[in-house]
Amino acid sequence: MSCPDYSAQGYQTIVVSLDGPVAVVKLDRSKQRNTFIDALALDLIAAYELLDRDDRVRVVLLTADHTAPAFCAGADLSSGWDRVYTEEDERQGRHTHKDAGGQVTLAIFRCRKITISAVNGHAAGVGVTGFQLPCDFRFVWAGAKLSFPFVRRGIVAEAGSTYLLPRLIGYSRAVALLLSGGTYAPDSPLLQGLYYASFPNREEVFPAALAFARELAANTSQTSVAWIKALLWRGADSVEGQHLLDSRGMADLVARGDSAEGARAFKERRPFKFSDVLSKDLSDFVPWWTELDVRQRTSKL
Amino acid sequence: MSCPDYSAQGYQTIVVSLDGPVAVVKLDRSKQRNTFIDALALDLIAAYELLDRDDRVRVVLLTADHTAPAFCAGADLSSGWDRVYTEEDERQGRHTHKDAGGQVTLAIFRCRKITISAVNGHAAGVGVTGFQLPCDFRFVWAGAKLSFPFVRRGIVAEAGSTYLLPRLIGYSRAVALLLSGGTYAPDSPLLQGLYYASFPNREEVFPAALAFARELAANTSQTSVAWIKALLWRGADSVEGQHLLDSRGMADLVARGDSAEGARAFKERRPFKFSDVLSKDLSDFVPWWTELDVRQRTSKL
Amino acid sequence: MSCPDYSAQGYQTIVVSLDGPVAVVKLDRSKQRNTFIDALALDLIAAYELLDRDDRVRVVLLTADHTAPAFCAGADLSSGWDRVYTEEDERQGRHTHKDAGGQVTLAIFRCRKITISAVNGHAAGVGVTGFQLPCDFRFVWAGAKLSFPFVRRGIVAEAGSTYLLPRLIGYSRAVALLLSGGTYAPDSPLLQGLYYASFPNREEVFPAALAFARELAANTSQTSVAWIKALLWRGADSVEGQHLLDSRGMADLVARGDSAEGARAFKERRPFKFSDVLSKDLSDFVPWWTELDVRQRTSKL
Repeated sequence: MSCPDYSAQGYQTIVVSLDGPVAVVKLDRSKQRNTFIDALALDLIAAYELLDRDDRVRVVLLTADHTAPAFCAGADLSSGWDRVYTEEDERQGRHTHKDAGGQVTLAIFRCRKITISAVNGHAAGVGVTGFQLPCDFRFVWAGAKLSFPFVRRGIVAEAGSTYLLPRLIGYSRAVALLLSGGTYAPDSPLLQGLYYASFPNREEVFPAALAFARELAANTSQTSVAWIKALLWRGADSVEGQHLLDSRGMADLVARGDSAEGARAFKERRPFKFSDVLSKDLSDFVPWWTELDVRQRTSKL
Repeated sequence: MSCPDYSAQGYQTIVVSLDGPVAVVKLDRSKQRNTFIDALALDLIAAYELLDRDDRVRVVLLTADHTAPAFCAGADLSSGWDRVYTEEDERQGRHTHKDAGGQVTLAIFRCRKITISAVNGHAAGVGVTGFQLPCDFRFVWAGAKLSFPFVRRGIVAEAGSTYLLPRLIGYSRAVALLLSGGTYAPDSPLLQGLYYASFPNREEVFPAALAFARELAANTSQTSVAWIKALLWRGADSVEGQHLLDSRGMADLVARGDSAEGARAFKERRPFKFSDVLSKDLSDFVPWWTELDVRQRTSKL
Repeated sequence: MSCPDYSAQGYQTIVVSLDGPVAVVKLDRSKQRNTFIDALALDLIAAYELLDRDDRVRVVLLTADHTAPAFCAGADLSSGWDRVYTEEDERQGRHTHKDAGGQVTLAIFRCRKITISAVNGHAAGVGVTGFQLPCDFRFVWAGAKLSFPFVRRGIVAEAGSTYLLPRLIGYSRAVALLLSGGTYAPDSPLLQGLYYASFPNREEVFPAALAFARELAANTSQTSVAWIKALLWRGADSVEGQHLLDSRGMADLVARGDSAEGARAFKERRPFKFSDVLSKDLSDFVPWWTELDVRQRTSKL
């Protein structure tokens, strides 16, 4: 099992720290309103891939400094949209472009731990699509301005948002958000169901999310979480097929330590002590789906 | 057409009775908090398969005694999780296990009649996933505690819940419910949209659901219901494909008696007298999908 | 680029007019409560197909006279359900029937512009399924009675509604609406999320929708809208696949004029002047999906 030292990874744009089994990923470009640049994408992708494999970590919490002008103000447009292209794109041809926002979405989405976004400031574009939608839980400041500006910029809604948003809250709301190109508050009827909790003050968001993360980290099984996330997003296309998959999962987990501990601790009304870890205790049956390779042939991403 | 005598089926754990065209399935393990055991699964599966084929039945209403300690307290963990295995599992190998909760879900889900769950007590685990999610309508006691404990027990969310829950209320809420492992009241924002109606007192739930069931049974076409349920859950993967399917359904039903009666009674502003039945009047075109066989080779389930 | 004269198209049942880049399609059978007949279907299909290809048009707004007895009272049942059959159906065999409601749904659904329905009166059957569900935005009169009568008429829920409704607002609500066969007000919990805005007075609905349409038409990119609609409804079946598609869209749009204008106008805080049009500036990559042919071989539809 790898126990990486996150302070030694050389991240330029984020700070990653462990709070016991909770990993906190903090955006570190406050002065630039945490705008999205390639370096930030690369740091986030590297961090989530490492956190996914680190058995010590049970919950990953993304946040920003609550005094920053924004949680994430979207793409850095100072040099226009051409910034979306990487050097690799130029070498391989622009049609091979793999959008950096989507690469971040995938890194978070594929993380087999519980993921939370603590949105303690305004968010625009990829600050919503890439930094919030792929997470399992979203905490938000009630005063946040949340922008979906794509149709008003002449670009696509990116970062897999056209896949995730309609599934998260239904097509009716997702279509309205993406085609209006508007800016909404968390209590907008259009955003109903997207946020797990909202808070009147910016400084409350992270502590609340951290307390929630600690509670989950202390009382949930790593293998159970990974199985359920996989069943949710990589499921069968019929309820019968899903029954076959979850039966397989049940048979696997019932043979592991965490299920015995879960039943015992529940019966004895005492705190859980789950110890199964992904590196050793996740069935070879996972993943049962074919993972699409989304890397450019020689991409540094 | 078969007219089974439900009192003669030898059910050990449920009571099935006909109230005209409404079948009431009552859980009968009140002293055991209606915990889920193999015998209960087998009774429910047998009953729903019979009710599906009984032309007299138009609505199936699942409920419990409102004085029971729970509507269903989940799996019986008195002997640990090993109880999930049947003798057949042991003979065939545990990897062939077909989860009993999912088998109940399928029996209800595949029932071509209108299905209702009248949740007049607390519900945990399979008491939510297997006894509520596959139903068309859910009535609930506002004071019910609804638990999704899977990640806190080291097992998977079962009974097809990872397929049904995100479709019923969206991925954002479904992921939060399943990964938090929490207990929620029916008025929780996370459960919004899941329940058709809620009632402050336990004793009100069943009578309200029964009145609703009777009204639907009196005024809906059996073939129309079966077609619409099939279109909803076994539809095409594009709106064009769905148009082809529902055109086929329209052409079929317009040639049947119920559509003529529907138009006439509506025009004459009199009660409907629908008489088409599934055993005679459901098109051979249904089912148009391939049903996945989920039985173990020699399973008694 | 075609610039059709909509007043010269010979529509019998609708009036189509241009308000700058906003096309208004007005149902013109007020005395017949805008009931659905073949002629209306044919007019709507022809109009939406033309509007889809007319580069001048950015938003299409469907409405009725707010003094009409209904926005659309559903199918004209004066001669029973047999009216669903066209002469073509009779020639080719009724099993080849292509439901006219679904053909209207498809014409609206396939329109690559922003589509709005301003529901300023009661709506039943196809008045909901065909005239509202395929639109991007729905504005409604708060006093409207919205009926889903299918199970009480002995027919299927048509016009692709069994595909669209569960995706728009989730299966829990969609199943309840379609299997109850009930009539609901826009503020019903079952309809939550379906309407973008509702208004206490009938006469307010159209002006509000028109103002909204004008604002969107002035400030959104035609190509961006077309791409995002395609990504939403013709997306991949995994988030990875969607990332590949939206990356392709991003690379395409970043090379076009509208994205440069979007970034510049945003930076200069001035109104947008988008000029890319579908006939010239939509990538050959669109459509990437295979369009299902839903025409009858010799159908006039």
